[in-house]
Amino acid sequence: MIVSFGELLLRLSTMQAQRFQQAKAFEVTYGGSEANITSALALWGIPSAHVTVLPDNEIGEAASQLMRSYGLNTSFFRSGTGRMGIYFLEHGTSLRSPKVIYDRFNSAFSNLSKGEFDWDVILKGAKWFHWSGITPAVSQSAADACKEAIQTAKRMGITVSADINYRRVLWQYGMRPIDVMPELISMSDVIVGGITDFENCMGIKLAPDQSFEQACEKVKSQFPHIKTMANTFRVTHTSSHNELQGILWNGQDAEKTKNYFINPITDRIGSGDAFMAGLIYQSLKGAPNRQIIEFATAAAAYKHTIPGDVLVAPVEEIENCMNEQNIGKLLR
Amino acid sequence: MIVSFGELLLRLSTMQAQRFQQAKAFEVTYGGSEANITSALALWGIPSAHVTVLPDNEIGEAASQLMRSYGLNTSFFRSGTGRMGIYFLEHGTSLRSPKVIYDRFNSAFSNLSKGEFDWDVILKGAKWFHWSGITPAVSQSAADACKEAIQTAKRMGITVSADINYRRVLWQYGMRPIDVMPELISMSDVIVGGITDFENCMGIKLAPDQSFEQACEKVKSQFPHIKTMANTFRVTHTSSHNELQGILWNGQDAEKTKNYFINPITDRIGSGDAFMAGLIYQSLKGAPNRQIIEFATAAAAYKHTIPGDVLVAPVEEIENCMNEQNIGKLLR
Amino acid sequence: MIVSFGELLLRLSTMQAQRFQQAKAFEVTYGGSEANITSALALWGIPSAHVTVLPDNEIGEAASQLMRSYGLNTSFFRSGTGRMGIYFLEHGTSLRSPKVIYDRFNSAFSNLSKGEFDWDVILKGAKWFHWSGITPAVSQSAADACKEAIQTAKRMGITVSADINYRRVLWQYGMRPIDVMPELISMSDVIVGGITDFENCMGIKLAPDQSFEQACEKVKSQFPHIKTMANTFRVTHTSSHNELQGILWNGQDAEKTKNYFINPITDRIGSGDAFMAGLIYQSLKGAPNRQIIEFATAAAAYKHTIPGDVLVAPVEEIENCMNEQNIGKLLR
Amino acid sequence: MIVSFGELLLRLSTMQAQRFQQAKAFEVTYGGSEANITSALALWGIPSAHVTVLPDNEIGEAASQLMRSYGLNTSFFRSGTGRMGIYFLEHGTSLRSPKVIYDRFNSAFSNLSKGEFDWDVILKGAKWFHWSGITPAVSQSAADACKEAIQTAKRMGITVSADINYRRVLWQYGMRPIDVMPELISMSDVIVGGITDFENCMGIKLAPDQSFEQACEKVKSQFPHIKTMANTFRVTHTSSHNELQGILWNGQDAEKTKNYFINPITDRIGSGDAFMAGLIYQSLKGAPNRQIIEFATAAAAYKHTIPGDVLVAPVEEIENCMNEQNIGKLLR
Amino acid sequence: MIVSFGELLLRLSTMQAQRFQQAKAFEVTYGGSEANITSALALWGIPSAHVTVLPDNEIGEAASQLMRSYGLNTSFFRSGTGRMGIYFLEHGTSLRSPKVIYDRFNSAFSNLSKGEFDWDVILKGAKWFHWSGITPAVSQSAADACKEAIQTAKRMGITVSADINYRRVLWQYGMRPIDVMPELISMSDVIVGGITDFENCMGIKLAPDQSFEQACEKVKSQFPHIKTMANTFRVTHTSSHNELQGILWNGQDAEKTKNYFINPITDRIGSGDAFMAGLIYQSLKGAPNRQIIEFATAAAAYKHTIPGDVLVAPVEEIENCMNEQNIGKLLR
Amino acid sequence: MIVSFGELLLRLSTMQAQRFQQAKAFEVTYGGSEANITSALALWGIPSAHVTVLPDNEIGEAASQLMRSYGLNTSFFRSGTGRMGIYFLEHGTSLRSPKVIYDRFNSAFSNLSKGEFDWDVILKGAKWFHWSGITPAVSQSAADACKEAIQTAKRMGITVSADINYRRVLWQYGMRPIDVMPELISMSDVIVGGITDFENCMGIKLAPDQSFEQACEKVKSQFPHIKTMANTFRVTHTSSHNELQGILWNGQDAEKTKNYFINPITDRIGSGDAFMAGLIYQSLKGAPNRQIIEFATAAAAYKHTIPGDVLVAPVEEIENCMNEQNIGKLLR
Repeated sequence: MIVSFGELLLRLSTMQAQRFQQAKAFEVTYGGSEANITSALALWGIPSAHVTVLPDNEIGEAASQLMRSYGLNTSFFRSGTGRMGIYFLEHGTSLRSPKVIYDRFNSAFSNLSKGEFDWDVILKGAKWFHWSGITPAVSQSAADACKEAIQTAKRMGITVSADINYRRVLWQYGMRPIDVMPELISMSDVIVGGITDFENCMGIKLAPDQSFEQACEKVKSQFPHIKTMANTFRVTHTSSHNELQGILWNGQDAEKTKNYFINPITDRIGSGDAFMAGLIYQSLKGAPNRQIIEFATAAAAYKHTIPGDVLVAPVEEIENCMNEQNIGKLLR
Repeated sequence: MIVSFGELLLRLSTMQAQRFQQAKAFEVTYGGSEANITSALALWGIPSAHVTVLPDNEIGEAASQLMRSYGLNTSFFRSGTGRMGIYFLEHGTSLRSPKVIYDRFNSAFSNLSKGEFDWDVILKGAKWFHWSGITPAVSQSAADACKEAIQTAKRMGITVSADINYRRVLWQYGMRPIDVMPELISMSDVIVGGITDFENCMGIKLAPDQSFEQACEKVKSQFPHIKTMANTFRVTHTSSHNELQGILWNGQDAEKTKNYFINPITDRIGSGDAFMAGLIYQSLKGAPNRQIIEFATAAAAYKHTIPGDVLVAPVEEIENCMNEQNIGKLLR
Repeated sequence: MIVSFGELLLRLSTMQAQRFQQAKAFEVTYGGSEANITSALALWGIPSAHVTVLPDNEIGEAASQLMRSYGLNTSFFRSGTGRMGIYFLEHGTSLRSPKVIYDRFNSAFSNLSKGEFDWDVILKGAKWFHWSGITPAVSQSAADACKEAIQTAKRMGITVSADINYRRVLWQYGMRPIDVMPELISMSDVIVGGITDFENCMGIKLAPDQSFEQACEKVKSQFPHIKTMANTFRVTHTSSHNELQGILWNGQDAEKTKNYFINPITDRIGSGDAFMAGLIYQSLKGAPNRQIIEFATAAAAYKHTIPGDVLVAPVEEIENCMNEQNIGKLLR
Repeated sequence: MIVSFGELLLRLSTMQAQRFQQAKAFEVTYGGSEANITSALALWGIPSAHVTVLPDNEIGEAASQLMRSYGLNTSFFRSGTGRMGIYFLEHGTSLRSPKVIYDRFNSAFSNLSKGEFDWDVILKGAKWFHWSGITPAVSQSAADACKEAIQTAKRMGITVSADINYRRVLWQYGMRPIDVMPELISMSDVIVGGITDFENCMGIKLAPDQSFEQACEKVKSQFPHIKTMANTFRVTHTSSHNELQGILWNGQDAEKTKNYFINPITDRIGSGDAFMAGLIYQSLKGAPNRQIIEFATAAAAYKHTIPGDVLVAPVEEIENCMNEQNIGKLLR
Repeated sequence: MIVSFGELLLRLSTMQAQRFQQAKAFEVTYGGSEANITSALALWGIPSAHVTVLPDNEIGEAASQLMRSYGLNTSFFRSGTGRMGIYFLEHGTSLRSPKVIYDRFNSAFSNLSKGEFDWDVILKGAKWFHWSGITPAVSQSAADACKEAIQTAKRMGITVSADINYRRVLWQYGMRPIDVMPELISMSDVIVGGITDFENCMGIKLAPDQSFEQACEKVKSQFPHIKTMANTFRVTHTSSHNELQGILWNGQDAEKTKNYFINPITDRIGSGDAFMAGLIYQSLKGAPNRQIIEFATAAAAYKHTIPGDVLVAPVEEIENCMNEQNIGKLLR
Repeated sequence: MIVSFGELLLRLSTMQAQRFQQAKAFEVTYGGSEANITSALALWGIPSAHVTVLPDNEIGEAASQLMRSYGLNTSFFRSGTGRMGIYFLEHGTSLRSPKVIYDRFNSAFSNLSKGEFDWDVILKGAKWFHWSGITPAVSQSAADACKEAIQTAKRMGITVSADINYRRVLWQYGMRPIDVMPELISMSDVIVGGITDFENCMGIKLAPDQSFEQACEKVKSQFPHIKTMANTFRVTHTSSHNELQGILWNGQDAEKTKNYFINPITDRIGSGDAFMAGLIYQSLKGAPNRQIIEFATAAAAYKHTIPGDVLVAPVEEIENCMNEQNIGKLLR
């Protein structure tokens, strides 16, 4: 079983190309960086569970129902006092950028109580635990629970992955990333992040001309526990037209993927989560690095074609995308 | 000019008869008890302004745009740090009740700063100031600003009206209604509320068999400044079928209206605000009490047929409703 | 074949319970009093044709396509210069009345040229010709064409029916109904109308206490050609709840139907046209008067349950309604 | 755990008051008589599983996802060759009846293979097994599997309930209900059905003036295994206004509920399934018969207010409905 | 008159970029390869009729109504027992391919009875008869009726066209294409198809490096009756960006068109049918081959911009597209 | 304050890629070339007023409400007899062009009375007055009012700008552009138009190889009052992909902007108005010509990404577009 831990948000997005000010209705879905990953894995048939706290109302219940629909194990969902965090999304198009307004403070998740979760029970039998840098950013109690989970996973010999996911506008509870993240990262095996993340969350100083590979080596020297580091590079031609390339560093060599062109983009939220889901999926299968990173990047690219936060797509479609098979062919 | 003061909320409502858990989209509008009143008055051609604080983002801007569209003067809107308060609405139908989930803590409005508003400037030339019991319920600073506004209005000889609007789930900042409301009410001329409101917010103890009229007399003995008290009585046959009657007490006599039957109900939010708008409108015209209360109650009943928070209907339609003219006739 | 003559309008209606000012979209359909009748007849399998003029653009083409979809013969549709007449519709609900805004002046139909239609060709083989009082109200040339059509029908021995359909806001081209209508009515066999219509369009003065039957006798004395007169009486409890009763006078006796209660009303436009369609349908079948008027009234009542201008319902459903069979039963 | 067995259908319904011929879009949901029951139970927190066969495509997957969202255990869902059964639904309104078009032959479910399900494994630990008369109606193999399941349940001492649910248009594979149903019913403990069902599916001849209670006694004399029989009586005023009363016979006495009035009706599909869910829920709790039948009937009535096939409503709302508490009150 | 013969399907498509699993509603339209062609011709003012069998329910009636709206003669539509064939369509976008799920077995059309159609009556006065390889693929009786129609057309000297339209997933009734198609093709004058079609349906073996022109010559040597062969070549850059080129071989020379780039694609269903409609339209006008193929290919390309199965576009727009006139210019 | 004068139209547009004939609903908005400009300026915080005449009904009121929502001063809106002008819009896509059907004759605006507006009052305190060539094209009284406004502005020393906006299909009241426009243009300071406009509305004959700069010089020689001329050049690759470049001539030199590529286009209506709004905004700020034209052209390009007639976008977004900053970056 794969276990993830993190907050679920209500997503309210504008329809078609409308602006926030023009909206007479918002589309409703639910997601969160970590649950997006285990949701995709569950849809691919990998037993997966997510751990979170939701408000005890119908909005929280709706989030649970959507997660269950993906086949995600929601038995570790808890109800707590507080609200549902929200993010408002205005899709971009052409010259106009997509825009997110966060409204997530004081959520039930951020208010989680000490000892809310019995990690020994939750992680029993798990093969992989995933967390992201969003969780320690929302509150002290979330940071504490995250640390406890990682420590438990380590103790139980479970692989730990992290998406550093640095978001400047979070981190409002008094701690800086650099105070909290290095310890958590130091216990993780697989890290997804970019050079800015390394600087902000790991205190790694890099020269401007250093490559991702060189950065990884520097990280490794300070965080020797890390086995794999990966990232995607995005070229943003316009809001409708992006280009993605993935890279994976295994402690020695770096593998780079082909370039994926996405035009038009339906929904770019969750593409990093799709990347991580792909990476975990192929790693669990024991695939070679080349296949891991190509599949993960194809998953990230493919996510741009799918509405919502979650990569709703069978493995076969990702493989076709990665192998450039049947792209655009009418299948009947 | 009529001036109101209070919070604006983003309203997210389910479509048709859907439940919260079934919603794939929420309808979007904006409203607040006090602004709903001045919006209706502005639509009726009465110069009206609202005073509030909104978050400095597109959601706040959207709320402003809607208020402006009604012709409401928004020049006293301020931007502040904090979020937009939200309420989720599931419409009821038949045996199923309508349901509201509040998500309004820590809003930009509740965080308003001391001295944010210069009430002498704002109320200059105003004839009427309206506040409701929601405002002192959200935070100390809102309660303070409300008191300051009422005091200024009093000093300037402006008529002050209040809708007591007791909401148990608010009042979370440490004060009880009974600590705050009596002083504010004691400076108000026109009060809308029911017996429960009198008990909770004014400390009036009433025998179970006392009439509204008797209650008013008791209130008057303790709050001698009050000139007019009014209320509506609602018989709730089902969520789709309600019956309304209005009553107005002028310090001596009480006038009761005919019964208004509404079936089906399109949207019952804002019907109390429509009542207050009607009451202010006819009071400003110097109408006799009988006409004031019949018009106000017709406005409250008529609001049930109109989507959204605000009574979007010309005076002539309310008069037709009150006079039972052309009800249901195809006008072409 | 049944032939009708009259204008088609673009109908733009608000959605659900929205008001005109709240509409972000209008529902689109096309209809007209006369074509609504032949459309219903065509759906019932009676060969039917309509005669009209439409603007030479995609809006006109869309109207033609909708008419063809009902099986209506559109081979006598002509294109002309001018616009498509429009009516805006706000549905009523409960205490709020439905509202129509006409925007139909200078339409392609009202600009029809003299001699546009060769009525001898059009009416060849027809059994019935239908017109309404809307057509002579829109322009002199429409009135002239209508007269020419009726004269031709008379000459060819075709039954002529008319719905007097008095609309005060039309009749802007310089003629009054009383100048034009009596001659047209005097050549018609079947008349649908009420006492107000008789006064405005036929110059019949009636005492306030006269019954429909007495009115018919008076009409007959001045318009001896008329064989049948019929009408519906509507009790408008609210916009959502109406009651209908039909009456038919055959020159001697009057038959009254049972009362039909409609609650809620989906769309009350076209209910008079459904009545006429039912009346023609049963008359063509040679049904007894009792059956004619009961079916026609059931059709009128049933139309209130169907969106759009046209009675989209098989004969069997009207018969069930008339016989109170299976009303509300789930048919599976 | 509660286990149900039966087919899932794709439901395609018209929007608002549109007719099939007017539909430009169909609303999509999934349901089936038996799964509707266990879905409601799962939403109420009772561990519940459903057993079915779905086509191996995205439509089948969508049905699974919806069932999982309710918390229903879908681990006994199988993929098979064949299509997804469909039913088209046109909602009724006022004088116009709701209409269902079935398109369910040759479904993957009806093609299920012999031995597809290992009932000993499936029913291990179950407390209750539910089937309906729809399943043996669709194909021989479905009838066989149903019999096998009931026999296994009997053998394991599990309570068996059946909704007779006689549908004339099914039963096309060569067997008559009377050939198949009596044996299955004879092994069931709890039966929901009416007098017509008893005649068609159990061969019970009844005099026209016999009461439900008398019918039950006659049934019992021939099917001594049955412990409880229940049904609802519906008075169909119109498609929008129905009245329901429930009755439960426990082998000795019959309990009748109060009358429930539903006006307007949002969606009457699944009201019988809501009844059965309520009956099972209270039976499992060991409630007295009076409470069982009142709750079950309140559930059936309440379902009419909820879109879709499934009773998406917490126990508390059903109890309020049954106790006439807060009906129509705005909850905030 | 142009006559086509073939099945009509209900098309259920996802909205915007949604996946099947995400759909809460499907868009509804009706079409079929052969009727799409005669519908386009009817819209272009060419008298055209289609021949088919539909189920005797409202879904069948809705299909008829849509066909009539195009001006297609539907007087040869018959009702039969059986269901409406369905296809589910998920539009593709960017890297994600469009997907069709067929659900068309046991349709009323496939169950058509022997002698259902009197082809001598139907084809009387026709100039052109069109069939496609889908019809003989669905059932023996459909194949028989198709053969009978072609034979009658041949006997009456009517031009016969065929779109080979090989669909592997059909052909389930026991015959292979190669058993049935050659005889039908051998009686046809105009063939649209590609090299795979020739192999599967005509038994033509081709070397891998043979051109379309060489393939045509080989076909001609075995099917000497064929006068014209045509096809489009599609380069599928992505689901949103395609490129089309047309080719027409007249027995001697081949004409190739310019390349048409379509980006983005709105709806690629029916583009082959638009091609055939264009080819028939220009052939009937006696246009030179160059104009026939350029117009046909422009029609195919243009169809990608139009929602639904049918090319709803006037001839002038196709000509502008073909002549690269006004492409993208705002016409007002 | 900036003041504009001109007609407001109801815009009815098809949804997504539908054609007019396929539309079951039209999206509703309101706009007009001149008010689009002052609406954008009002949204940017520049006090702005528009002057117009609207019909005295709910459609007119809806137009007012939308204008007020932008913060536009609507106190100079007058009600008049006549209708609301309409334009129907079918968006283009790829190879298919956008299409506008005008239906604007006999509007309340075109019927405006002599002396309807007291321009001395309206323009008191204004800094800039804007008109366009649409206004003198609709009626003699509109042309007269426009002239009176320009003369008053001139007299008061207010800067006057004009968008020549030549529309051939207007100008139906008996005057030709060349009879009316030169006098109005001769009093204007800032002119937006192209070479065709100069020929049709100013009588300037130009050689085919003359540049915009040369044309401006020739114009200046005949219209010496003009200080600034500007225009955009559009390369229309397809309906979805356009390229824009702006040019501004200041009486001596011409400044050209970079090329802006828009792909895909959401809504190209109002892009010229956005250009003018940008030009006025920067001119008022006293920006150098280079900045004026780059900002104006960025505004025009950016408008293509926004639904509706009006540039709903803060200045900062236009500046980012102009500076190629953050284009397509997810802002959170």
